[in-house]
Order: sequence, then C-alpha cells, then structure tokens
Amino acid sequence: MKHFVSMKEKSETEILQLVKRANVISQKGVKPLTGQFFAANLFFEPSTRTKMSFVVAQRRLGMEVLDFMSDISSVTKGESIYDTARTFESIGANLIVLRHQQENIANQLAESLSIPVINAGDGTGEHPTQSLLDLVTIYQEFRQFNGLKVVIAGDIKHSRVARSNAIALSTLGCQVYLTGMNDWQDNTLPFPYISMDDAVEIADVLMLLRIQHERHHVHQTFTEAEYLENYGLTIDREARMQAHAVILHPAPVNRGVEIDTRLVECERSRIFKQMKNGVAARMAVIESLLNQGGNYSEENFNKRQANIG
Amino acid sequence: MKHFVSMKEKSETEILQLVKRANVISQKGVKPLTGQFFAANLFFEPSTRTKMSFVVAQRRLGMEVLDFMSDISSVTKGESIYDTARTFESIGANLIVLRHQQENIANQLAESLSIPVINAGDGTGEHPTQSLLDLVTIYQEFRQFNGLKVVIAGDIKHSRVARSNAIALSTLGCQVYLTGMNDWQDNTLPFPYISMDDAVEIADVLMLLRIQHERHHVHQTFTEAEYLENYGLTIDREARMQAHAVILHPAPVNRGVEIDTRLVECERSRIFKQMKNGVAARMAVIESLLNQGGNYSEENFNKRQANIG
Amino acid sequence: MKHFVSMKEKSETEILQLVKRANVISQKGVKPLTGQFFAANLFFEPSTRTKMSFVVAQRRLGMEVLDFMSDISSVTKGESIYDTARTFESIGANLIVLRHQQENIANQLAESLSIPVINAGDGTGEHPTQSLLDLVTIYQEFRQFNGLKVVIAGDIKHSRVARSNAIALSTLGCQVYLTGMNDWQDNTLPFPYISMDDAVEIADVLMLLRIQHERHHVHQTFTEAEYLENYGLTIDREARMQAHAVILHPAPVNRGVEIDTRLVECERSRIFKQMKNGVAARMAVIESLLNQGGNYSEENFNKRQANIG
Repeated sequence: MKHFVSMKEKSETEILQLVKRANVISQKGVKPLTGQFFAANLFFEPSTRTKMSFVVAQRRLGMEVLDFMSDISSVTKGESIYDTARTFESIGANLIVLRHQQENIANQLAESLSIPVINAGDGTGEHPTQSLLDLVTIYQEFRQFNGLKVVIAGDIKHSRVARSNAIALSTLGCQVYLTGMNDWQDNTLPFPYISMDDAVEIADVLMLLRIQHERHHVHQTFTEAEYLENYGLTIDREARMQAHAVILHPAPVNRGVEIDTRLVECERSRIFKQMKNGVAARMAVIESLLNQGGNYSEENFNKRQANIG
Repeated sequence: MKHFVSMKEKSETEILQLVKRANVISQKGVKPLTGQFFAANLFFEPSTRTKMSFVVAQRRLGMEVLDFMSDISSVTKGESIYDTARTFESIGANLIVLRHQQENIANQLAESLSIPVINAGDGTGEHPTQSLLDLVTIYQEFRQFNGLKVVIAGDIKHSRVARSNAIALSTLGCQVYLTGMNDWQDNTLPFPYISMDDAVEIADVLMLLRIQHERHHVHQTFTEAEYLENYGLTIDREARMQAHAVILHPAPVNRGVEIDTRLVECERSRIFKQMKNGVAARMAVIESLLNQGGNYSEENFNKRQANIG
Repeated sequence: MKHFVSMKEKSETEILQLVKRANVISQKGVKPLTGQFFAANLFFEPSTRTKMSFVVAQRRLGMEVLDFMSDISSVTKGESIYDTARTFESIGANLIVLRHQQENIANQLAESLSIPVINAGDGTGEHPTQSLLDLVTIYQEFRQFNGLKVVIAGDIKHSRVARSNAIALSTLGCQVYLTGMNDWQDNTLPFPYISMDDAVEIADVLMLLRIQHERHHVHQTFTEAEYLENYGLTIDREARMQAHAVILHPAPVNRGVEIDTRLVECERSRIFKQMKNGVAARMAVIESLLNQGGNYSEENFNKRQANIG
C-alpha cells in the first residue's frame, strides 16, 4: 500500500488485514517506530476528532507531528496545495494527512508526491480511515463481515463516510442498505433504499450519519424534532432493533436530530468505542504505509513533472 | 485528589502539600512520568501564559499534549463541551485542562468524566492553579502563611484569580484584605475593604489584579492615568511599602494602569517569578492527579448517564 | 554568537562556519541536544515554510516547541512583545524565534532578553536564516563564494530576503547585482542594477524574489503575464543562462509571475533543495546559539531595566 486515499481500490484481503491489525493494536498496543518520522497534518476544514485521533495515533507510534493551520499559513499568500505539500515533503515530512473540501484532491496529490498520502476526508468524496474504524468496531462485535446486514442511515448524498463505508462493506460481503430522506439519496450507489422503520428491524449494524449542515446551501424545511421523528433513531425505534444489533455514528452527533440524546450512550451504542478504535485504525494505516512506500522514486518524480508542466 | 477545579473544596493540608511539592519541583525538577500520558488542553478563551505554562509543565513531566483550537474545531459544528471532552477521553486523553467563559463548567465536566479535570479559569469563577502559583511564590518568601497580611487589589468582581486566592489564603490562615473601586467590589467575599493608601502600608503581600477589560461591557469613565493615581501602585505608594513586602500580579500587566511601568520589574516585584512558579505548580497538580484518580469507574459512568439522560 | 538577528553584524568567518556546519548537518544529521530545551516560536505574520522548517529543525535537535498563536493569545489583551517574550523566558523558554511585521524588533528584543533571539523575518528588515539556507545551497554547488556573480531579481525594496542576502553575499566576496522594476529598486543597497536579459546571461546564481503582494498598498498596474514577460524568468530567458548556473527562490512561488510554472522544478532549479537546506541551516544556528549564549547575565538584566524604566 503506497497511499490510503480511497476504499475503491482496496481488495477484501487488504481491508481485512488492516481491520485485524487495528484490532490487535487496540488491544495490545504497538511498539513505536524506529527512527524519527514526521507526519504533516494538512487540515483545510474544521476537525476535532479526526485530527486529534491522527495526532494520538502518530504520537503513540512515536512520530513527530507538523500541524498545518490553513488560516494562518502561506495559503493566505495564494499557494497551491501541491506547493504546500511539496514544501512539507522537502523539509522532511514522511507522510501527509490531508483533509480538504475538494473531492479527489488526495488522489491527485498522491500521484504527485513521493511520500504516502492519507485522505482524511475530501469534500463529499471519501473518508477511508473513518470507514476503517467503523469496520474494526463491527469486526469486534461479529468477528466477520459476510452476510451482515448493515443499514447506512441519513444524509447519504453529502456523506463521504457513507461512500467509503458502502464500498468497503460491499467488498467485505455485507448486505448494504440505505435509508434517508428522498432529497438526500445518492443514486450512484448500487444499494437498495428502505424505510427507517424497516431498517431498525433488519439491521445487524445501524450506521447513522451526521447531517452535514455545513454542506447544505438551502434552508431546511423541517425542524429537528420532525427529522428525528421521521428519519432518526427514536427511543421507540431503538426498542424494535434486534437484541444483538449495534448502533454506529461517526460523530459529532447532532443530539436529538439523528438520534434521541438518551440513546447516544445506550447499551448498544458503539459511538465512543468507534472513537477509541479510530486511533488504532489510523495506527494500522500509518504503520502499513511507512513500512512499504514513501521512498523518493524516479517514477514519481517524472509523474510530478508531467502533472505540473 | 480526583480533580482540581476549585479552591473551595481544598483543606489546609491539601493546599500546603501542593505548595510544598511545587516548591520542591521548582528547585529540583522532577522525573518524567513512566509511560505515555496525554493531556488535552481545551482552551475556549485567549491565553498565552496559562496555556503555555501548562504545556511546559506537561512536557517537563514527559506528557503528550493535545492542543484543542476552539475556533477551528468541531465546536464550529455545534458540538457541546461534554461531547468534545468525551471525545478526547475516548481517543486516549488522561487529563483535561479546561478554560472556558462559563462559570462552573469545569465542575460539571468533572462530574461527567472518568479522567481528571483541571480548571484553568472558568468565567468569573475560579482559577485555582493561578492561585496555587501565587501561594508558592508567597511561601518562598515567608515559609508559612499564618497571620500574613495579604491585600488583593483591583478588579475583584471580575477576577477569578481574586476568588480562588481569597478562599485559599483564608484557608491557610492569612488575613485577607481587599481594595479597589466601589463598582468592582464583590460583597460575596467576607473580607474587609480598605483604601489603596492603607493597603501599601499594611501588606506583607500586595496582590495586584489585572483589569479585565474583556469582561467590562460598559465604557470606562476614567483614564488609565487616573486609575493608576487613585487605585494603582504608583512610585510613591511603592515607597511606603514595608521593607519585606512583595508585589504579585497574575499578568498580563496593563502597564501604567494597575502599576507604574517602572515597577513591573522592581526589586520587590515577583511577577516574572510567579510565572516561573506557575510551571512547577501545574506539575505538582498534574502529578497528584495522575497518581491517584483518573481510572474509569462504574460510579462515574452511572453519574454520566444520569447527567445526560 | 549570542543572537541571530541580522547578517550585518556577521564576519566572513562566522558566516562560513555556519554554512559549513549546516552543510555537514544536511548530509550527516546531528545528535540531539543533551537535556530538555524549549524553543518559543513567536510568529506574528502568516508562515508555513519558515515556521515548519524551524519546528523540524528543533525537533531534529530534540527540542520542545512552544507554538505561540498571536491571534488567540494574550496579545489580543494588548500585551507588548517584550512582555510576551519575557513570559516565555520566565516559563522556561531557552530560545525565541520571532517573526514580526515591525523592522528591528528582533534587535530590540535581543537586547532586553537573557535568552537567544533568532530573527525569522522583521517587516522589510532582514531574514537571516533564509539567507543562510540560500548560502548553503550556493555552497553545495560551487564550494566557495569568492567572485561568484549573484543576481537578486524582483521586488528588492520590499524583500527582507534580498537585504540579508545582499549583505551576506557581499561579505563573502560575491559580486552582487540587482534587477527589477524601477519602482521596486532599493537605492540604499550599494550594488548595480542590470536588466533581466543581462542578468540571465552573467549570473552564476539567479536569486528570484517573491512579489510581496501583502506589502503593496497600491493596485498593481501590470498583469501577471506582463510581469513575467518583462521582469520574470521565462522559458526563453532560462535557455540563455550559463550551463552551470542555478535558480533560487525563497518561495512560496507566484507561479507564472516571477517564474514560468514549468521552470519551478526544472533541472537548474534549487527551490525545493533550498527548503531542505533550510532545516539544516536552522539547526546550525540553534546549535550554535545554545552552546554559547543564553545564560541569564547581570549585564542583560541591567540593559533590560534601562530599556523599560
């Protein structure tokens, strides 16, 4: 693995390896890397949990962290992301973690740099490390994926988490269902839409999504209470879930909207466990990237020249 | 000690122990903690010295530091402090340091989390580590507290430093006096008000406060020079202080307002020594919290559920 | 060397020593410092590469980094730079790195503090560590400086990089030439102005400058394409350079303005190599400062008192 930018390109074996490795790390920890490695965390969008989760993962691995603040940096002088990333590469970064509002930007960067790139969320594109931590959490419940019924619920269209998960879960043999408001359906994903009332009854895993208020450009026509009642996880719906079924949510949770606030830490919620697993998942990814890829190669240099010239 | 959020709940013995330990640390240093510990510094208000003082204290103890920037984080997505703090707890924080504009918020958080919380200033509430560093500085001068005359001067009403110090000094047996403009008196504190001219003559310790411009919502009716002349420490007043008396100020100093700028680094000023002691004081607090508290307990989990449900 | 604030005060021997030491560090690395040292990075202007370059240099030396964010700090409470710097000194900083919009501020601070100060750019004053990394890059090409023809091209008047380089190159025995628009000439520098067309033909080193858009207070009367054609490095001009000549640019590059975008990573460009050398150059400076200076001296204390009193 040279980069980790999408779940599309990953085989079942590759994903399972990462899931299992992250699971081991979550239980037994891991030895720090030998030598001094620098991670450059380039976050062009607000983030607490993803960014901090990467920092904890990096520090647990003994890495140095370069924290890039887009608002007070040379980006205010009009520099491109490519030039920013190349700068970090030049001063010694061994790894780039990129969050950016533009879809596919991590892919493009990966093709131009000689160090590994991790996509930490690209617009409405993908968010593969969030997907990986979801998979680890599911794995810890069921020990396998084949045939599991997973329902992804909510704002599918604007969710990079939904996209990465739908792809990865499908690769792993899960039966993926979607549910949500008509306006938020994404018809590029080849999975059936069902109602929320059906969803709670069939799901082994109910994967709630955050409403991406910041990506909606029109005023919403429903109140939060109405949304919860029609599309969210109410106390009543939770009661109809199967005994073994679990609830996931990438957080931050809009309490009382996607889920009744009393359910956020209920017995079948794995929301805070997901965050814990996020650190292990990111450690597994970084460990894998730094063992293999990341050396400056002729091939990469030529690709870069072609991209820019 | 499970948390450090207020001076109210602390006994004379507890405070003295921390003061003496901090004093030892300030002279001899301390061995780093064994193992990897993460501190999450959650600062929702501007701060240089307190935040940086905590960072130095944490790094001297060998702790990892998670720096939370409220303006570029998920808080912009509307997340509550509880959810933010729980996130840090989930990803592996062993300690929370909280500065926030809302009084009592550190107390509330402490009751909901299973890791220790340090209050680094809550609105006009308390600022117990600032108080502790003041106590350490006084202790280094007088080697005891009983009977010392300490005058707290200035903007009492808006000062969390004044509140924490008045409580702690009183617990330690000091004679506490207050002085300041009528408008800024806080009548909930059971200590006598005296004039600044009397204050400089009786004080063993003169504890100046910062005018909290940022907490005043009306325009001030006096010039800076007038304030200094009537309520501040002028050259003339300093000359009338007892030979052994010392001056404290939590800083940042409004030069020429609370104190004549020429006195900021005068012989009896301990202002920069206070800052130095701040690091040792915070190390003593952190060390104490991490040795005892901080384990995830059933009891805390149940409390948390009750708070949220 | 007690501080590193200007190239003016440096002898040929001093500069050469730093250049050679940086060159060794860039090839062989260096052992971390013994003991725990804290660097306070005080950046009052936007910066990615300089700040991050210092952070990498500091971490490679094993230093702790205190990151000062001017917009969310006590500076918003009106504190002076002197008081901010003294605060960092008091809490344990062993070194100050200062970037500020005000010329000469690093000099002034250096005279008032007992710890070393590095100027990381002061207004249109100087930027001596950028100059040092340029010198290291030149040294790696030519192994000496005497008689080399170096042309500094572009926005001379607003460039602290130009000023530091012109001084240092001249000290080292280079023949310095300047080129650029009439409006941007700086007649305080005693070096001849030539045309860009002549420049490319005589230069051993062509040192392009960034147009400092942020320092121009009037609207520019030319388009970017016009600027490139008249004053920038076009494909055509690059073709006329001597075989051994190299191109430098402090970055961030305004692509298509100072230089044709296809030339940024051309064979004779050393732009990304400069960044790499920047880390080694800063390590050499820090190493030199921490070995010699930095102890609290009576003399410094008295100077400080005189400055403030």
